[in-house]
Amino acid sequence: MGNAGADVDFAVGMGGAECSPHSVPVPPARPFLDTFRENLKETFFPDDPFRQFRLEKGGRRFVRALQYVLPILDWAPSYTFTFFRADLIAGITIASLAIPQGISYAKLANLPPILGLYSSFVPPLIYAMMGSSKDLAVGTMAVPSLLMASMLGKEVSAATEPTTYLHLAFTATFFAGALQASLGLLRLGFIVDFLSHATIVGFMGGAATVVCLQQLKGIMGLDHFTTSTDLISVLESVFNQIHQWRWESVVLGCGFLSFLLTTRALSKRGAMFFWISAAAPLTSVVAGSLLVYLTHADKHGVEVIGYLKKGLNPPSTSSLIFSPPYMMVALKTGMTTGIIALAEGIAVGRSFAMFKNYHIDGNKEMIAFGVMNLVGSLTSCYLATGPFSRSAVNYNAGCKTAASNIVMSVAVMFTLLFLTPLFHYTPLVVLSSIIVSAILGLIDYGAAFHLWQVDKIDFCVCAGAYLGVVFGSVEIGLVVAVAVSILRVLLFIARPRTTMLGNVPNSMAYRRTDQYPTAQCFPGVIVLRIDAPIYFANTNYLRERISRWIDEEEDRLRCNGKTGLQYVVLDMGAVSSIDTSGISMLKELKKTLERRELQLVLANPGSEVMKKLDKSKVLEIIGQEWIFLTVGEAVGACNFMLHTSKAENIGVEIGAALP
Amino acid sequence: MGNAGADVDFAVGMGGAECSPHSVPVPPARPFLDTFRENLKETFFPDDPFRQFRLEKGGRRFVRALQYVLPILDWAPSYTFTFFRADLIAGITIASLAIPQGISYAKLANLPPILGLYSSFVPPLIYAMMGSSKDLAVGTMAVPSLLMASMLGKEVSAATEPTTYLHLAFTATFFAGALQASLGLLRLGFIVDFLSHATIVGFMGGAATVVCLQQLKGIMGLDHFTTSTDLISVLESVFNQIHQWRWESVVLGCGFLSFLLTTRALSKRGAMFFWISAAAPLTSVVAGSLLVYLTHADKHGVEVIGYLKKGLNPPSTSSLIFSPPYMMVALKTGMTTGIIALAEGIAVGRSFAMFKNYHIDGNKEMIAFGVMNLVGSLTSCYLATGPFSRSAVNYNAGCKTAASNIVMSVAVMFTLLFLTPLFHYTPLVVLSSIIVSAILGLIDYGAAFHLWQVDKIDFCVCAGAYLGVVFGSVEIGLVVAVAVSILRVLLFIARPRTTMLGNVPNSMAYRRTDQYPTAQCFPGVIVLRIDAPIYFANTNYLRERISRWIDEEEDRLRCNGKTGLQYVVLDMGAVSSIDTSGISMLKELKKTLERRELQLVLANPGSEVMKKLDKSKVLEIIGQEWIFLTVGEAVGACNFMLHTSKAENIGVEIGAALP
Repeated sequence: MGNAGADVDFAVGMGGAECSPHSVPVPPARPFLDTFRENLKETFFPDDPFRQFRLEKGGRRFVRALQYVLPILDWAPSYTFTFFRADLIAGITIASLAIPQGISYAKLANLPPILGLYSSFVPPLIYAMMGSSKDLAVGTMAVPSLLMASMLGKEVSAATEPTTYLHLAFTATFFAGALQASLGLLRLGFIVDFLSHATIVGFMGGAATVVCLQQLKGIMGLDHFTTSTDLISVLESVFNQIHQWRWESVVLGCGFLSFLLTTRALSKRGAMFFWISAAAPLTSVVAGSLLVYLTHADKHGVEVIGYLKKGLNPPSTSSLIFSPPYMMVALKTGMTTGIIALAEGIAVGRSFAMFKNYHIDGNKEMIAFGVMNLVGSLTSCYLATGPFSRSAVNYNAGCKTAASNIVMSVAVMFTLLFLTPLFHYTPLVVLSSIIVSAILGLIDYGAAFHLWQVDKIDFCVCAGAYLGVVFGSVEIGLVVAVAVSILRVLLFIARPRTTMLGNVPNSMAYRRTDQYPTAQCFPGVIVLRIDAPIYFANTNYLRERISRWIDEEEDRLRCNGKTGLQYVVLDMGAVSSIDTSGISMLKELKKTLERRELQLVLANPGSEVMKKLDKSKVLEIIGQEWIFLTVGEAVGACNFMLHTSKAENIGVEIGAALP
Repeated sequence: MGNAGADVDFAVGMGGAECSPHSVPVPPARPFLDTFRENLKETFFPDDPFRQFRLEKGGRRFVRALQYVLPILDWAPSYTFTFFRADLIAGITIASLAIPQGISYAKLANLPPILGLYSSFVPPLIYAMMGSSKDLAVGTMAVPSLLMASMLGKEVSAATEPTTYLHLAFTATFFAGALQASLGLLRLGFIVDFLSHATIVGFMGGAATVVCLQQLKGIMGLDHFTTSTDLISVLESVFNQIHQWRWESVVLGCGFLSFLLTTRALSKRGAMFFWISAAAPLTSVVAGSLLVYLTHADKHGVEVIGYLKKGLNPPSTSSLIFSPPYMMVALKTGMTTGIIALAEGIAVGRSFAMFKNYHIDGNKEMIAFGVMNLVGSLTSCYLATGPFSRSAVNYNAGCKTAASNIVMSVAVMFTLLFLTPLFHYTPLVVLSSIIVSAILGLIDYGAAFHLWQVDKIDFCVCAGAYLGVVFGSVEIGLVVAVAVSILRVLLFIARPRTTMLGNVPNSMAYRRTDQYPTAQCFPGVIVLRIDAPIYFANTNYLRERISRWIDEEEDRLRCNGKTGLQYVVLDMGAVSSIDTSGISMLKELKKTLERRELQLVLANPGSEVMKKLDKSKVLEIIGQEWIFLTVGEAVGACNFMLHTSKAENIGVEIGAALP
């Protein structure tokens, strides 16, 4: 290590080394526990969330810890009236969305509509205490509601056994909350990162399409409908019953849908129109109720919500089902919906944190979501998260802190206590229109087009997830999405890039020959670069690929009548880490090349590679003298050896020819 | 691309750039189908197995194709008498192992002992025709036999329903063969690579331990034994029945075991002793049979094999079970044992190919194994593969081609037709001793110790798999092994290394500051290196980690009273590929740094990174003028800007101070 400073790149061109190359040091050994503790920290605490605590002491540290667990203690003391005014406006705005959307999504999940209001009362309060995002608005979401209906509906019919179905929904929410909190506590949040953006775009788009298709039942006013969710079944069901479409429903539905879509399109034109679009759902509900009340349309076949119980959330602790056979389906549903809700909520929180330039701890957010759903499952709520559309409204309405959730919660409480009779005459077709208009935003054409432009493989992944959902089922689509994501990750590892390098003329840099056509190769020497760490998952591939590079180059040289290769230089600059299989691979490569009378030369190996080569004694097998600091030095030394041996051969021939 | 040749590294130290840096070109666009086809070829055909065909034409090409599918057509025409002599000796040697081991392993799998001989007759013939390895010796293996007994035994008891159990074993073998052949045909062989060497060492060691523990039943001569395989249950079962140990069995067992272990230890001392060790199992069988015959020990409670039917393999086509409920357990068993047998067989084939310096196509070998097992399942054989111990004997006995398998097959046929009555009196305790002596080699202490020395994480993985098998069950151990392997792969991706670089004095090289303590950092500039490709699985981590690097450096500078950072240089040399999430991350990073009044500078981006930056328009956001070919040029430009602005400031101050 003492010679560390002597890393000098000399101008080494053809002909030989100007001075002796420098040795690559083996880093000093570090105790295993040190490196293990460091790796553990990098894996689970990359953002070092406890850094702030080290600066504090004693009592302050306890207060800091409490503030860490309950962020409300952090921002509440500095709460001002300006903040309150902004949060009040934002809170009322999102409440006006929460009420109609909550009722709609609850019907989407085949649950009693009042549950939508319950789920916009308790969970936001918990989140306001424990959550870190200033912009996230808590509420139920369409896709998890659909998934819940789909997965629970396979075992228990909501029509024939509504109580069991309801209790299963609470149990599933309990499990979802438990999963979310556990992932956060164990700091396994990076698992959510494995769902790539492309798969999420495809999956959400497909789920949104399925939800829209489901709403055709409400809009057409059909009584009987397919239980399958795929496109073919739904279109069949709709067009086989053309004569049963109710014109009143169709007219009402299309009317309100156009209104909602128009306000939505308008909102993009200017900030002023934003308020119109935010108020549109509640306006539709009121208008629809009035219309039905005045025309007595409910007597003419237009379905309405009906009676909604007054009062706050009843406790549901005794409703949870923990016994087979139903517990398994609740567990499965809870885990699936929990992960999806988590992925969305974390993504939303991170996006807004980036807009407003503050930082949120993903794992801490997961704990907040988990506790929110655990408490919700005990108070008659079902799965809640931070939907993007509602949080965007919150952001646009100018929210300042998570107190906007408290305001929304209070507004919903007010509705629960006093205003539920107002929804008696609300036609279901209006709810369907609200769902469709809200969910169309999830079908992100822009993102899909962007994927097509930048990375067509990503686009194929996205399309695969979309088609899996639309033509299969939501679960099939989800499995396809996750499988493709993981497969792509595994393929990245299993098929690393290797390239051949050449010397760019008049310089010492070595670049890829396919990117720089003028890069030259030296006779007798081939320079290969391995562009990834060497792990068990790719050692076999790398060994075969390197052999193939050598074979192809020797074929090419033989066809052109030149002398064969003598040196194989491996540029290890990008091999940031290596495991025991990788070390074995290098050892076997050395032996194979020896048998072919080729010399293996390593250039620019990193510290971890050197350490492991040394500990496994492969360093001695390869030979310290064949390890160089840069590719330039390595090639220089090879050229020197080639010319020296050539000179020796010529000298021998001359000597033999002399009398 | 025209300026590609002008990649020059000037000596840029502190003070400024000597001349203008060079632009990094965006590579020209290639049609998507071209790159897709190339990637497909790299993924599935890395060793380019059809290269030889391109050189041939017409009729020759057809012959070549036939030789590719049936390698026997390749080596048979050039078969000489010398080869035959070597293969004859090797074949007879491995037959002398195959017969006792085959019977033993069949009993391990709770199958009729004759199946062990059937499985050493048909499968080796198929392999000799289709296999590529010259040294692999085909036969049954202990670990898959154990797994089969364990997994099938959960559903069907071999004692009470032997016929169903037998048919399930054939069906499981059928599915195993189908899986192996499919993996080979679809060229999905790289899936086997995902079981790291560490996990295989741990799992095989654990399975071998379990097998040895199971043999205690035979050696102690116990009638009743636990069905569980874990250590605690077995020891309990053995020591609770101390008074029922049969001293005859114990004496015989320990005697033969010592004999076998001694010859095995001797064989390592010299080539001459190898033949003694190879002949030892058959000798033990003969000696044991004689002993029992002469002492009539079978009347005194020593269990013997009993009647073995004469004759070749009866067809078993009608025995396969394809109907629920049993088909599922056969399918599961077949898939599990098939994968393990494949992993071992491929590893063995590759090892010997490397010793003898020839190449085998892993996927083609898989097809050979698959067909071998498919045909075997139709001819009363159960799962066969290429066990390492038998192949090592084949290799040491001097085999030259796969014809040694044909010789072994003929020898077994001879035994089946004429010699089966000889095994009537063979005591089971001799079979147990043979199993134990053969399997002790699977507990590879040397490999585990090597893992401990070189990579302690790999050692933990190995230990985890071992303990999972020994204290849980074989299935639990396998699940633990696979899960840990996959998790390790995912973690490699999810937590890439990032390091801070400094300039090594008197040179232009930038190296890690933790490896080279003399490396200097320039004021106002931080140089970070990302040591891995940027994918969706690690973008969030990278973003947080880079922020943390910057925060820590700014804290450090502030504590030392120096000026803050102004430039963040990212060395992208190791970022060999990037996807859309990675591109988004760079865009967000640029915006975040802008808000912190820091300038983002990229150094040495590869061609794929440049291509995607350009297509996504992020290149314009970052600015082409902030992308440099090397870290040296980037830092040089930053220093130049810093000094220029400092000079300007001084000039402004002077100007302001002047009257």
